[in-house]
Amino acid sequence: MSAPRHPIAIIAGAGVLPLEIAQAARRMGHGVFIVALRGSADSRLFTDFPSVELRIGQLGAMLDTLQTRQITRVAMVGALTRPALSDLRPDAGMLRRLPRIIQAYRGGDDHLLSRVIAIFEDCGLTVMDLREIAPDLVAPQTTLSRTAPRERAIGDARSGFRLLDTIAPFDVGQAVIAINGRIVAIEGAEGTDGLLDRVAAMRSSGRLRDARGKGVLVKAAKPGQDMRIDLPTIGPVTIAGCARAGLAGIAVRAGEVLLTDRQKMIEEADAAGLFLTGMNSGG
Amino acid sequence: MSAPRHPIAIIAGAGVLPLEIAQAARRMGHGVFIVALRGSADSRLFTDFPSVELRIGQLGAMLDTLQTRQITRVAMVGALTRPALSDLRPDAGMLRRLPRIIQAYRGGDDHLLSRVIAIFEDCGLTVMDLREIAPDLVAPQTTLSRTAPRERAIGDARSGFRLLDTIAPFDVGQAVIAINGRIVAIEGAEGTDGLLDRVAAMRSSGRLRDARGKGVLVKAAKPGQDMRIDLPTIGPVTIAGCARAGLAGIAVRAGEVLLTDRQKMIEEADAAGLFLTGMNSGG
Repeated sequence: MSAPRHPIAIIAGAGVLPLEIAQAARRMGHGVFIVALRGSADSRLFTDFPSVELRIGQLGAMLDTLQTRQITRVAMVGALTRPALSDLRPDAGMLRRLPRIIQAYRGGDDHLLSRVIAIFEDCGLTVMDLREIAPDLVAPQTTLSRTAPRERAIGDARSGFRLLDTIAPFDVGQAVIAINGRIVAIEGAEGTDGLLDRVAAMRSSGRLRDARGKGVLVKAAKPGQDMRIDLPTIGPVTIAGCARAGLAGIAVRAGEVLLTDRQKMIEEADAAGLFLTGMNSGG
Repeated sequence: MSAPRHPIAIIAGAGVLPLEIAQAARRMGHGVFIVALRGSADSRLFTDFPSVELRIGQLGAMLDTLQTRQITRVAMVGALTRPALSDLRPDAGMLRRLPRIIQAYRGGDDHLLSRVIAIFEDCGLTVMDLREIAPDLVAPQTTLSRTAPRERAIGDARSGFRLLDTIAPFDVGQAVIAINGRIVAIEGAEGTDGLLDRVAAMRSSGRLRDARGKGVLVKAAKPGQDMRIDLPTIGPVTIAGCARAGLAGIAVRAGEVLLTDRQKMIEEADAAGLFLTGMNSGG
C-alpha cells in the first residue's frame, strides 16, 4: 500500500483562478492547502479548504507552515500586486533571503517570478506546472463556441501569434488585437482588460473605423516561458471586454492558456455571437 | 541663368507640422503651394501661402490644379483621418483610379500610404522626402535639453529601439515606453499621446509603482520605412504628455524623427526637467 501523497499548497493571489485550480487539483485526487496572500487573494473564497492568510513579507511563516504540514509541492496562482518594498515588512525568515529578493525587484515580470521560483527551490519546495495539477482548465485545440472563426479572423489570429512570438524576448504583454489584417493594440503593463477597453474607446472615438464584429483578441504564452508561473488566463470578463470592443472573437494558443469559469465563458460568447477557439502553434 | 524651380505642393493634413514644413521649405528657397485637406488640415494656418482646400475625394481636382501650376513635386505632411469609403465622394478624376484606391483601404497604414504614393507617381508626380525639404526639422544626434539622459535611461532607450525594430514588420506603432529595464507600453492605433496617457493612468492607479522621473518615451521610424511619408513626429504636446506620465525624458532616433516647434519643446522640457535626446541607430 503506497503512502498517501502529501498535499499541494496553492499560493493564491487575486481572482477566482486560485479557487478553480484548487478544485481542479482536488478532482485530480490531490490534497490541497491554501496560502492566501493578504492584499491580493480573496480569502473568503477558500472556506472549503484548509488555509492560512499571510502577507507576502511573511515568507518565513509560510515556510514554517508548509514544513509543519509536510508540504513540499506548491503552485503559484493568481495575479499579485507587486508590493512596494516599503510595504513588504519582511519577517525573520524573509529577511535572511532579502538580498536575493531585492534583486528580484529589478527587470520584467518573468525575471521577478523566476527569482521567486528560485527562492522557493532554495527552500526545498517544488513549484508545479499548473497544467499538471489542473489539466481540465487548459484551452484545448478546438472551437468551444457555437460560432467558428471565419477565414479573415484566422488570418488575424495568425498575425497576432507571430507578433506575440516576436516580442516574447522583451517580456512584455501576452495579448494583441488584430483587425482586418492590422495589429491595432499590443498589451503592455495595462493587462488584457485594459487592452480591450482601449480598443472599445478607439471604436467609440472613431479612431478605429472597422465595422463592429471584426477583429480578434489573440493570447498565448511566450515561447520558452516557464509554465509554472503566470500562465495567460481568460475568463468571462474577457468575453465581456471583447463584446464591448466589437471584436469577432478570441483565439488562444491551445495548451498554453487557462480558461476560468469555462462554461460561463462559452455561454456568454454564444450570447454575444463571439467565437472562442484554441489554435495550435502554427496558428 | 537657371530657370526658377517650380514650386513644391504640400498636401497638408492635421496639425501645425504642414505649416512648419512649408516655412522650412521656403527657407530652403523653394516656392510652396498648399493643398489643405478638408476635415484634416486647418486651412487658416496657411494664409501666408498660395493654397487650395480640397476633400480627399477630389483627387482629380488636385491633379488639375497642380498641372495648371506646373507643379510635379509634392510632399505629404500631417495626420489624415482615414475617411470611411462612404464619406469619400470621389470626383471624376478619382473615380478612374478607384479600384487601386479601394485596394489601398486594406492592411496597415504603411500599405495605405505606399499605395497613395504609387497613385501619385502614376499621375506623374514625385513624392519628396520631408527631410530633404525641411532638414532643420529633423532630430539631430545630440541632447537638446539641459538635462542629459542618465545611464539607466540610455539602457531603457536601447531596449525601446530594439523592440521597435523587432515589431517593424508588423506595421504597428512607432513608440514604446520603457521604465527601469521593463517595456511597459507599446503604441498601437491609439498614437503617442494615447500611449502617454495610458502610462499616466497606470501611475495614478498604482499599476506602475516605479518612482516618477523614471522611464523613457522611445520613438523611431521603422527600419526600411519609406521616409517620404508618415515620419514619426514629436512636439510640445509630447513633452507635456511625458511630464504627466512621470517619465525622465524622450529618446528619438536621430535623422528619423521630426521635431515640431523645437524651441518651445526644449523650453518645456527644461521647465519640466525632462531630457530630449537624439540617439544613433545602435542606440
